[in-house]
Amino acid sequence: MMQKVVLTGDRPSGKLHLGHYVGSLLNRIQLQAEETYQSYVMIADTQALTDNFERPEKITESVFDIMRDYLAVGIDPERTTIFIQSQVPELAELTVYYLNFVTLSRLERNPTVKTELAQKGFETSIPVGFLCYPVSQTADITAFKTELVPVGEDQLPLIEQSNEIVRRFNRTYNTDILKEATPLVSKTGRLVGIDGRAKASKSLNNAIFLSDSPEDIRTKVFAMFTDPNHVRVSDPGRVEGNVVFTYLDAFHTDFEEVAALKARYQHGGLGDTAIKEILNATLQTLLEPIRERRQTFTHKELCDILQTSTHAARRVAQQTLEEVRNTIGLRYFD
Amino acid sequence: MMQKVVLTGDRPSGKLHLGHYVGSLLNRIQLQAEETYQSYVMIADTQALTDNFERPEKITESVFDIMRDYLAVGIDPERTTIFIQSQVPELAELTVYYLNFVTLSRLERNPTVKTELAQKGFETSIPVGFLCYPVSQTADITAFKTELVPVGEDQLPLIEQSNEIVRRFNRTYNTDILKEATPLVSKTGRLVGIDGRAKASKSLNNAIFLSDSPEDIRTKVFAMFTDPNHVRVSDPGRVEGNVVFTYLDAFHTDFEEVAALKARYQHGGLGDTAIKEILNATLQTLLEPIRERRQTFTHKELCDILQTSTHAARRVAQQTLEEVRNTIGLRYFD
Repeated sequence: MMQKVVLTGDRPSGKLHLGHYVGSLLNRIQLQAEETYQSYVMIADTQALTDNFERPEKITESVFDIMRDYLAVGIDPERTTIFIQSQVPELAELTVYYLNFVTLSRLERNPTVKTELAQKGFETSIPVGFLCYPVSQTADITAFKTELVPVGEDQLPLIEQSNEIVRRFNRTYNTDILKEATPLVSKTGRLVGIDGRAKASKSLNNAIFLSDSPEDIRTKVFAMFTDPNHVRVSDPGRVEGNVVFTYLDAFHTDFEEVAALKARYQHGGLGDTAIKEILNATLQTLLEPIRERRQTFTHKELCDILQTSTHAARRVAQQTLEEVRNTIGLRYFD
Repeated sequence: MMQKVVLTGDRPSGKLHLGHYVGSLLNRIQLQAEETYQSYVMIADTQALTDNFERPEKITESVFDIMRDYLAVGIDPERTTIFIQSQVPELAELTVYYLNFVTLSRLERNPTVKTELAQKGFETSIPVGFLCYPVSQTADITAFKTELVPVGEDQLPLIEQSNEIVRRFNRTYNTDILKEATPLVSKTGRLVGIDGRAKASKSLNNAIFLSDSPEDIRTKVFAMFTDPNHVRVSDPGRVEGNVVFTYLDAFHTDFEEVAALKARYQHGGLGDTAIKEILNATLQTLLEPIRERRQTFTHKELCDILQTSTHAARRVAQQTLEEVRNTIGLRYFD
């Protein structure tokens, strides 16, 4: 049976948090368990450098933190090939060839990139590396003959861009060596930050990390945004936009209990302290084994696993690169 | 004594012609003879693909023709490292890192690139690979710690762009591993085409190739643009803009004889046929030994030399890449 290749990854710009856990890690663990899939997980340091090249240590120092997070949540290097992007130089070479198959106006029109450029304040001074990261992603996707790419809704234009390059390459050289990828749109939206902002992230300092101490978790839960009009315990409270309930929905294992809590809160008579205690207990239970498992790996073990699996990823990428070179005709010495 | 590294190269998009001979090949042979220089000559197939990716065979098939031309004119692989760009993948990796150090507006402002985009009709649909070729050139220049780059006046902006990336990289990482290059502006301008157009080139079909047969040389000389108002032998003729005299200036070894011919032509009494016979004899004498030497190399010999010297170039590029990676911090396994 041919396995379908699934590629996911993270930009290493800090430890992983609960947003990553519900947004992608759980999904990866599920996919890894199915025998029909061959999973690759990329630690995208080269991509992260495109908007962090002035502080590379932020990226390079996060690589092993993220690897530790992966293993702690249960990504199994026996089943999933975890690799570091920069250590597969074939990806850079594919990127250079693919740059010929995309026009500047097409890159500038990419909605995902446009939004990110605005967020980063890059509009007037766009680093070319950042503008080109969708081409680098095409190299990542095609190098492993990826068929499925789990993505958020907002990343769909990146898969479209990749498939466009694939089609144009295949058409130009009358070949089918490159494969189009199918996006697997995740049902879970982004996890909000503890402050109620749209996205939990390290830079906004509003995320609960998988590696947070019990005290940090408790402090962050008790700092969560709830309903500003819910002043007295007896007041009716709002559940929509209330971060505690958003997190209970995402992490509490008993849906019925959460529904009952919501009803009481909306009716009046359930205080913020009480629901925060419940959420705190939920998250402590979830994160304790992950935090403990994080400590069971030595740096050398992480290093060995990463080196072995990056080497395995490289062999696959080398083969694809060889096919691409041969297709273009860049083979001079036999 | 430390040798100064000199880098030159050609896009392999056809055999070399007399324009290359006076414009760069002679200069390379001179530089190669001086012990203070270490010469690299790059066959820039990856760069040539940026505007020829739809017909790669035009590029890949020219690589060995150009190598044959190099050896035939006297570029000596014992003294000059001749290599194929695509076979030094470290250059692609350096390119990807350098893309972070240049903004889109800076690339778009590059006068050399602007002119070329207009010439190629790319204005509305710019392939990103082509727009980025100055960054790829920065990789070529820095990979070998190049100090001198012989260029035409019109290519000066490319060296400026490269030096800007070098300075920005070194400043960002507080290092001096990358070296700025000094342009060595060639005194000889571009050789006009036999039709009097500004540039002899394969695509305009107005060039005399180093490999042209004696018959082809004669036919091309006799098709040369002279002075359209010089109808009868006895008429005074113009020397300026007269291609035959431009070529006599460039290739005839006896300046005094050329000066005497010009005077007679301007005075009247010297026919086009006579000056074309003189130029034909001059070019036949120049090109016969080159053409014969071209035939003395088997394909296998060219292949062996290229493979050996590309390998030598790669070792140098690998070391630079290693330094760049270490500077950024992309070293995870020791």
